[in-house]
Amino acid sequence: MPHINVDKDLPGIRSLMAFSPETATPMGELVNLLLRSNEGLSMADRELIAAHVSYLNDCFYCHQSHGAIAVCYLDGNTELVEQVKKDYPHAAISDKLKALLSIAASVQKGGKFVTTEQVEAAKELGATDKDIHDTVLIAAAFCMFNRYVDGLASNTPTDLSSYPLRAQQIAEKGYGNHVFSGKQPVPDKQEI
Amino acid sequence: MPHINVDKDLPGIRSLMAFSPETATPMGELVNLLLRSNEGLSMADRELIAAHVSYLNDCFYCHQSHGAIAVCYLDGNTELVEQVKKDYPHAAISDKLKALLSIAASVQKGGKFVTTEQVEAAKELGATDKDIHDTVLIAAAFCMFNRYVDGLASNTPTDLSSYPLRAQQIAEKGYGNHVFSGKQPVPDKQEI
Repeated sequence: MPHINVDKDLPGIRSLMAFSPETATPMGELVNLLLRSNEGLSMADRELIAAHVSYLNDCFYCHQSHGAIAVCYLDGNTELVEQVKKDYPHAAISDKLKALLSIAASVQKGGKFVTTEQVEAAKELGATDKDIHDTVLIAAAFCMFNRYVDGLASNTPTDLSSYPLRAQQIAEKGYGNHVFSGKQPVPDKQEI
Repeated sequence: MPHINVDKDLPGIRSLMAFSPETATPMGELVNLLLRSNEGLSMADRELIAAHVSYLNDCFYCHQSHGAIAVCYLDGNTELVEQVKKDYPHAAISDKLKALLSIAASVQKGGKFVTTEQVEAAKELGATDKDIHDTVLIAAAFCMFNRYVDGLASNTPTDLSSYPLRAQQIAEKGYGNHVFSGKQPVPDKQEI
């Protein structure tokens, strides 16, 4: 049960954003900037980083949600996404992305866990300064989102069939006002 | 040395926000909403929560910066702020704020560390749902900011005399465009 009086028909972070629409607006803008871009890192790469960090933070709602969005971008390859979440070193992804996931995993522990050697290894595999910046900020941002969702014990749908439908909407339309912004009406409660 | 090529004359998060002005804008808006409000929690309470979480995350730049801002709001009481950062149960603050700092410290470990008992205890001491929401989100947000600052190894001024001057500016003017927004020119490099 949520720790505060939020709309129990809304799942996860959506219930919190409806509770606090003012803070929802910049949080929604941040997630759009970080995850809905193909500049350098692809949208699939970005969602995989978000899903892996959320998995490490044991945030079921976030790793299911962002894993499902990654699946949309990766032609339905659920197996690959699950492996990246749980065991990326053995997943069929590029060495560059593995190097960036290693940095993201260090950020999850704490900023000072990122080493110069990790960064140099990523750069040797083609990562730009922007790729490294975005990786660190995506990982850091999900350390916020995960704590927000679980720190207030927001409701988490355990019916796994609900995530792919919602993911498809986000994959097609982005994290728009229909998801996050407090400037818009609360999203349709039937829609997950 | 920073892991990416940022302006070395800018300290901490300001160098990162100059590197990535697009993401700086919503991050600046979020910090303003969370820390520059006296609705429920005072601005001093909010900075103390930010400073304590940053201390737990071992982020020198952030706990020095936000500790110094709290000092401005608390009539120069540096000793009180240092005690809240390091040992709040014995600090001369309200029991309600102690209960909220306990929740913030749990969020720092991970969202699931917050217990119903902690939340009930805070409510019995007068905390509203909004107080609890804001405490959790401030703590979660500083788990992001701290990781952003240290995950990219941004420069941290070790001259402690530089923090109070900067803190005074923020205490007077807020985290405005002169601090964070990418829409404005990069701040004066002489100003910390």
